Amino acid sequence: MIRFSQRALRLKSSAIRNKAFNQPDIIKFSAGQPEPKLFPVSELSALWPDLLHDAGPQVLQYSGSEGLHRLRELVAAQRLKACGVDVSADNVMIISGSQEGIELSAKLFVNEGEAVACENPSYTGAFSAFAPYGPDYVPIAMDADGMRMDELERALRTRGDISMIYTIPDFQNPTGITMSLERRRRLAELAAAYAVPVIEDRPYSDLSFAGPPLPAVKSFDRDGWVVTLGSFSKIFCPGLRLAWLCADDVIFDKYVQAKESASLQCGTLDQYLAWAYMQKYDITMHIAELVGLYRARRDTALQAIADYFPHEVKYTKPAGGFFVWVELKPEIDTERLLPEALEKAKVAFVPGGPFMVGGRPKNFLRLSYSCVAENEIQTGLKRLGELLKAKY
Amino acid sequence: MIRFSQRALRLKSSAIRNKAFNQPDIIKFSAGQPEPKLFPVSELSALWPDLLHDAGPQVLQYSGSEGLHRLRELVAAQRLKACGVDVSADNVMIISGSQEGIELSAKLFVNEGEAVACENPSYTGAFSAFAPYGPDYVPIAMDADGMRMDELERALRTRGDISMIYTIPDFQNPTGITMSLERRRRLAELAAAYAVPVIEDRPYSDLSFAGPPLPAVKSFDRDGWVVTLGSFSKIFCPGLRLAWLCADDVIFDKYVQAKESASLQCGTLDQYLAWAYMQKYDITMHIAELVGLYRARRDTALQAIADYFPHEVKYTKPAGGFFVWVELKPEIDTERLLPEALEKAKVAFVPGGPFMVGGRPKNFLRLSYSCVAENEIQTGLKRLGELLKAKY
Repeated sequence: MIRFSQRALRLKSSAIRNKAFNQPDIIKFSAGQPEPKLFPVSELSALWPDLLHDAGPQVLQYSGSEGLHRLRELVAAQRLKACGVDVSADNVMIISGSQEGIELSAKLFVNEGEAVACENPSYTGAFSAFAPYGPDYVPIAMDADGMRMDELERALRTRGDISMIYTIPDFQNPTGITMSLERRRRLAELAAAYAVPVIEDRPYSDLSFAGPPLPAVKSFDRDGWVVTLGSFSKIFCPGLRLAWLCADDVIFDKYVQAKESASLQCGTLDQYLAWAYMQKYDITMHIAELVGLYRARRDTALQAIADYFPHEVKYTKPAGGFFVWVELKPEIDTERLLPEALEKAKVAFVPGGPFMVGGRPKNFLRLSYSCVAENEIQTGLKRLGELLKAKY
Repeated sequence: MIRFSQRALRLKSSAIRNKAFNQPDIIKFSAGQPEPKLFPVSELSALWPDLLHDAGPQVLQYSGSEGLHRLRELVAAQRLKACGVDVSADNVMIISGSQEGIELSAKLFVNEGEAVACENPSYTGAFSAFAPYGPDYVPIAMDADGMRMDELERALRTRGDISMIYTIPDFQNPTGITMSLERRRRLAELAAAYAVPVIEDRPYSDLSFAGPPLPAVKSFDRDGWVVTLGSFSKIFCPGLRLAWLCADDVIFDKYVQAKESASLQCGTLDQYLAWAYMQKYDITMHIAELVGLYRARRDTALQAIADYFPHEVKYTKPAGGFFVWVELKPEIDTERLLPEALEKAKVAFVPGGPFMVGGRPKNFLRLSYSCVAENEIQTGLKRLGELLKAKY
């Protein structure tokens, strides 16, 4: 009998990887994937010959654990500056998706049995990344302005074992809720006051449907307590596995060591491609196009819910990103609803349970409109609405 | 003051990343990098348009944590079959370099304070990957036939805390030594007898200078105790960050969960490129070309050592791979020799210390000839030899 470590025993398969979602004819509101039809395929094709000609075989060679310097420079000058974070390339590290940033953060900050404070609900993949390290969780309630800072402060004041705060401030996964500007400022203050690092995960932040995104929590950080994670996955192409991490010096060096020990570096070619694209094209124009598409899908989804779901159903109205969070009446267990939805309505969603810590009410679900065409959003949510109406 | 986890405090920067190596005019016998001039740049360029045309934007989209199925099939049918391992794609997972496979192995098998048995010396990057998990080490001596199985068995018999065995059977890093066929068989038997998993790391195995590589330890594994790691880094391009892991079912599923929780997946485009290359070209022809180049460099290096080093110096004669392991007289501390070698001989090497566990004699160093042209091997080793002769 193979004997696994305690860490291994805490690992489970993701709720989002449910194989039943791959049946034919299922309209998938389950995947948080970006729409592939807007990937800049022809732009990347056009870049490729010049890139190979100019940079040569180095694009296929090992490169540094921090990431390609020229890409780190563009991330600092463009993406971080855009959210109010003024740093040089020296404090930017390229990572294999935000997922890696989340995992390395738990590895670096959380001893077994110590606690992570996070929004409740929060990203199920973050819980998977944290799981091997065996943390306790301090779930912090949210309202329409995001994580409640009074609750967070109470937790920080009353328990001494919180070693990290994890937040998704913009268009949060799974709720779609955005943290207010005032709370961002307050979060940075609390981190410094209680000497607890904040990991700010911003994969959706640039996909803001009404005006520019709010400044990052990191922009309010004076003494290096905030680590901010941004990603190319939702604004460019997830298959390149590129995201970035920005942290102050002491923390930064530990992340580089941790990245090197875990996987040496990100893909060199992927980094050159992202750099060459940002160098030649204006990625903000591309983002504007994405925002147009996702905003239209958000509008269609919210309209379909209003039109077809029972009126008692509550749901969030995201100002950006990919997700609507739906609260059904307490009698409905969404884990049990799912097989019925797959079979009868030919619709997939993710039940709320895996996003929650603590009490885990069973009557929530996450809908993602990002990778579903508008007519399918209509059709799918109408069918789900009919299934729900029969239960109200 | 930032408070890091115990794991983080165990992390250090790599000895191979010494910034002094990047001074101009240094001949680098320090890096274990492949020669970029043989990267198949033009072949990959030629594949790119068809690949994008046939597979479309999916090459830039998320894909599964196990890796691209079509690449897993080719790895099983070609690379694993070539070393005597007969499995289907279902037991092959694509990982971000062998480094990730090593890291995930420690995560899955080694509780804090438990022991890893490994060759002494061994790959310093493996020690870095293990470090956060806080293992103890059981160093097993090597002779010309690799890890000594009598010593390993004694360790397995006398201590109950060995939870993993780590080995590099072919052209070992740093010694260049190859484990004999008989010991491979014995290692598989011992793993089963003592119920301890073996992680077999084979990044250099295909670069065999005299005849085909020996069968993998995994080929002697009847009951699923051996995990084998192979890599595209040394036979194709390291910048794509692609390696593979082959394990039996129960272990395999845990690796997939661990990979998903740590970084979701490998780069989709990188995987399509490797697949398309292997589909269209015969990678064994490419490997044969690499073997020709590295064998010539090995020959030049061994001849230069024979010609220019003091006759008392001992060194290994690798039958493949990248490394020669050099033993100087006990009075010479190679950590102290290094700055002198950089300054006076304009030559970089890696001192032996970081590859060792236990007593750590100070008079060893690793020379890598893989990424140094033949005339520079001559020049560099002559200069290093002169420096050494002055000390004998």
